Amino acid sequence: MAGMVEVKFEQISPADFFYRNRDIAGFSNPSRSLYMSIRELVENSLDACEIGRILPQVVVQLSEVKKVSGDVCVYKLKVEDNGIGVEDKHIPKAFATVFYGSKYGYRQSRGTFGLGGTMALLYGQITTNKPSTVISSTGGKKIHKYVLMIDIVENKPKIFEREVLENRDGWRGTIIEFYLEADYTNSKAKIIDYFKHTAMANPHATLMFIDPRGRLYYFPRVAKKTPEPPIESLPHPVGVDVETMSRMLAASRERNMVAFLTNNFQKVGEKTARDVLEIAGIPADISPKKLTHQQVTALVDAIKKYGRFRAPDPSSVSPIGKDLLEIGIKHMLKPDFLKVVQRPPSSYSGFPFVVEVGLAYGGAIPPSESIHIYRFANKIPLLYDERADVVWKVVNERIDWSTYKVPKIAPLAIVTHICSPKIPYKTVGKEAVADRPEIERELLAAIREAARALKLYLGRIEKKETVIRRLNVYARYLPLIAKFAAKLADKKPPKLDHLLQPMGIDDEMVEKVRKKALQELEVS
Amino acid sequence: MAGMVEVKFEQISPADFFYRNRDIAGFSNPSRSLYMSIRELVENSLDACEIGRILPQVVVQLSEVKKVSGDVCVYKLKVEDNGIGVEDKHIPKAFATVFYGSKYGYRQSRGTFGLGGTMALLYGQITTNKPSTVISSTGGKKIHKYVLMIDIVENKPKIFEREVLENRDGWRGTIIEFYLEADYTNSKAKIIDYFKHTAMANPHATLMFIDPRGRLYYFPRVAKKTPEPPIESLPHPVGVDVETMSRMLAASRERNMVAFLTNNFQKVGEKTARDVLEIAGIPADISPKKLTHQQVTALVDAIKKYGRFRAPDPSSVSPIGKDLLEIGIKHMLKPDFLKVVQRPPSSYSGFPFVVEVGLAYGGAIPPSESIHIYRFANKIPLLYDERADVVWKVVNERIDWSTYKVPKIAPLAIVTHICSPKIPYKTVGKEAVADRPEIERELLAAIREAARALKLYLGRIEKKETVIRRLNVYARYLPLIAKFAAKLADKKPPKLDHLLQPMGIDDEMVEKVRKKALQELEVS
Repeated sequence: MAGMVEVKFEQISPADFFYRNRDIAGFSNPSRSLYMSIRELVENSLDACEIGRILPQVVVQLSEVKKVSGDVCVYKLKVEDNGIGVEDKHIPKAFATVFYGSKYGYRQSRGTFGLGGTMALLYGQITTNKPSTVISSTGGKKIHKYVLMIDIVENKPKIFEREVLENRDGWRGTIIEFYLEADYTNSKAKIIDYFKHTAMANPHATLMFIDPRGRLYYFPRVAKKTPEPPIESLPHPVGVDVETMSRMLAASRERNMVAFLTNNFQKVGEKTARDVLEIAGIPADISPKKLTHQQVTALVDAIKKYGRFRAPDPSSVSPIGKDLLEIGIKHMLKPDFLKVVQRPPSSYSGFPFVVEVGLAYGGAIPPSESIHIYRFANKIPLLYDERADVVWKVVNERIDWSTYKVPKIAPLAIVTHICSPKIPYKTVGKEAVADRPEIERELLAAIREAARALKLYLGRIEKKETVIRRLNVYARYLPLIAKFAAKLADKKPPKLDHLLQPMGIDDEMVEKVRKKALQELEVS
Repeated sequence: MAGMVEVKFEQISPADFFYRNRDIAGFSNPSRSLYMSIRELVENSLDACEIGRILPQVVVQLSEVKKVSGDVCVYKLKVEDNGIGVEDKHIPKAFATVFYGSKYGYRQSRGTFGLGGTMALLYGQITTNKPSTVISSTGGKKIHKYVLMIDIVENKPKIFEREVLENRDGWRGTIIEFYLEADYTNSKAKIIDYFKHTAMANPHATLMFIDPRGRLYYFPRVAKKTPEPPIESLPHPVGVDVETMSRMLAASRERNMVAFLTNNFQKVGEKTARDVLEIAGIPADISPKKLTHQQVTALVDAIKKYGRFRAPDPSSVSPIGKDLLEIGIKHMLKPDFLKVVQRPPSSYSGFPFVVEVGLAYGGAIPPSESIHIYRFANKIPLLYDERADVVWKVVNERIDWSTYKVPKIAPLAIVTHICSPKIPYKTVGKEAVADRPEIERELLAAIREAARALKLYLGRIEKKETVIRRLNVYARYLPLIAKFAAKLADKKPPKLDHLLQPMGIDDEMVEKVRKKALQELEVS
């Protein structure tokens, strides 16, 4: 039926892959691409400060170069930070090679893929064909400046200009400047939201955004303390698969397996190491480099079977904290009620994580049929693809809000923060967190705890309203009844204070209710 | 404030990237990973048949090897097809190198990323540390067999065994067999759905699935004609950016720019070529290899400005077709009402696409508050992340169903199919289509057209019900009134046939209504 069909096979570089499939990295149209470019670079800047315990100051400037069509223009985007800077030798690859990065360690950071910054420059390059400029100094005597593009086919930098400048003022930081085709008109709201929410989750940072019309959006730091930088820690044995185990064994310098296990993993002491090796049927004194394929698999299986490891060390995790979260939410939403819950550290597949939740009600929150959700992961706001996120699932499908006395249309907002050295994002664009069962469970527990507090609050309000309604009836009718009864008996109306006061009704309330009743009579 | 901080930079291979971030390719847990593995391999098989105009027969067999914990087991997965086979020299890389593929051309196919098959084997390897077996023949004298693993760090195949067998029976096709840790118990429903829906969209294919308990799910072909295979066509000028243009210019053999434009793009004749070059300020007779960077950018800009290209050629698109879609939906949903709409070809960023929609009501569709959505893209079902898809947005946020007389709780199902040489997926896992405005618009138009037909149908039903209700009243009371009136006048009851018959009421109906009335009296 079929003759020979010639099929062309082709190998493409990762840069070429993301060039062909930029939707996957979130660069799907001119407005979202602008949002993505800004957030990727701002997040790199915040990471570059956090790792050096520096109070961040990030300045983003967007200026219009020329109109293209409709709302689409060519813009110049400049992002400047006071972070630790990038060493000269790493600059070209760090910004012009896909999958070249500093974020592959076992530590919490905003970036995770070694992709975002390069992706922004790649997008700029393919829409404008202009090179990008990177200026950086680690605070030494020199400032390094590169003008470069990405060789997409080869996935490597093409350097146009390289300059070394004297660093007389001891400046330290990174400046990136490039051109891109984008739509600010239709992404403005999201971009401002992004800065607002980032400021909320990073109160120690100063953020400035100068938009194409020259307006300055200024978010000054409100906390003077840098948060503890997350620590890079050893991997937890659970969650290490055969591939990682093989790599670790190959890189090992230990002389026997007990030393290998105790030195390279957290939560593994000598006793645990011996127990695991026994389950795996591996001699304790064998050299790590001599394990066969079968033995590596047996070791990983034994770790899974062991089941008695202590939970992973949460020191590689850096939550926002209850106090800062409370300040941030109050500032942003001005609610009547707020309950913040921080869950104890938990773990999935060997990665520690912490869930923090704020539940806010009333105040400046507009009543709505759908609950307002504000999602954060590793201190960055997630603004797109809400319905694909595990938080949406928990809030809308796992919780029956009527049991917490929440009416159908309510001024209810939920703020969630998940932090971990490894956030299980569903997309390269880092917009939605996958529904790992462990994370789902922690979110559910945190939201339920906050919701119980809300229920008490709403119960109190309900009761208060009932009481006020009842008192209003007394305040309105008791004096009238007394008056009429006195008239009928031809007596002076009696003093009612001793009756009304124990119920909490004073003269002021009586007067208020009387006036209201008069008003009602006039209207009707 | 900050001393020197040492930052480790690292370059990782694409295989390593997906190894570290398998959530991104949809391999997020043991049940979804099984589903993903099966679908990626089945889709490769269907593509391998379509390209050779072969009636596909795909056999998938899953067998349990051992329990791991809970519902998680090690399984052996074997997928066999009768497609065109893979040439010997391509086998190792095609299955053990990420971003090595045959699907980067300008043609519709189920696979798009050159990733899925390799990703399935990668997942199997990291969870079981066992090599995979690939057996293939293009129908010649030899069958080639490889036992291999993926060198993740280097992104290249590690070959353990290579065998060449005599192909005495002229067999043609590909067999893949590998081991993976998975959860069938919790993915069974999705997997069966996947086969069911794939059969619906590919009625010319025979699909067989043998599950771990030995049950056979058999979906025989119902159409004997292979669909026209989609044709690889030239790119449309709109949608070609500076990077692609530069590559095409570099590869060009034409002597001047007019020849370059007319030979390498669809919908560009000599007149159009000259007009575009004039807008760009590029001489018509210049050699394509001699364009400067500025000129390339000017050319791409001129194409965007020109605005008078005819729509892209839809011959690279292969829809299911109204008839086959109707058969498939009737078979699957057995509805009382069905309207199928196929929109004319349209395009986004230079890629043609066609939208097909089926709207089904009543019958076997269970009434529900939420509308049942069945999504297809390039003839494959999309079963996860429904809420992130443009179809969900259109159905739930862009259409007010009450204007089409659809009640709040209704037996309503919508089947959508989008086909294009380039589906703008939001994720590498190919589960949700991005909301490109052009696609959203076509979906909206198609669903509205079908919904108008539904409105007429529901209107007729409503009217019929009203008429029947009214007739029932006549049928019940007219004979009684006549009887009583006759009794009062002491006469015999008159014949009512000449009154009732013109209204469509016969003796049978009168009798039926009388019995029903009696029943009601007995009950009360």
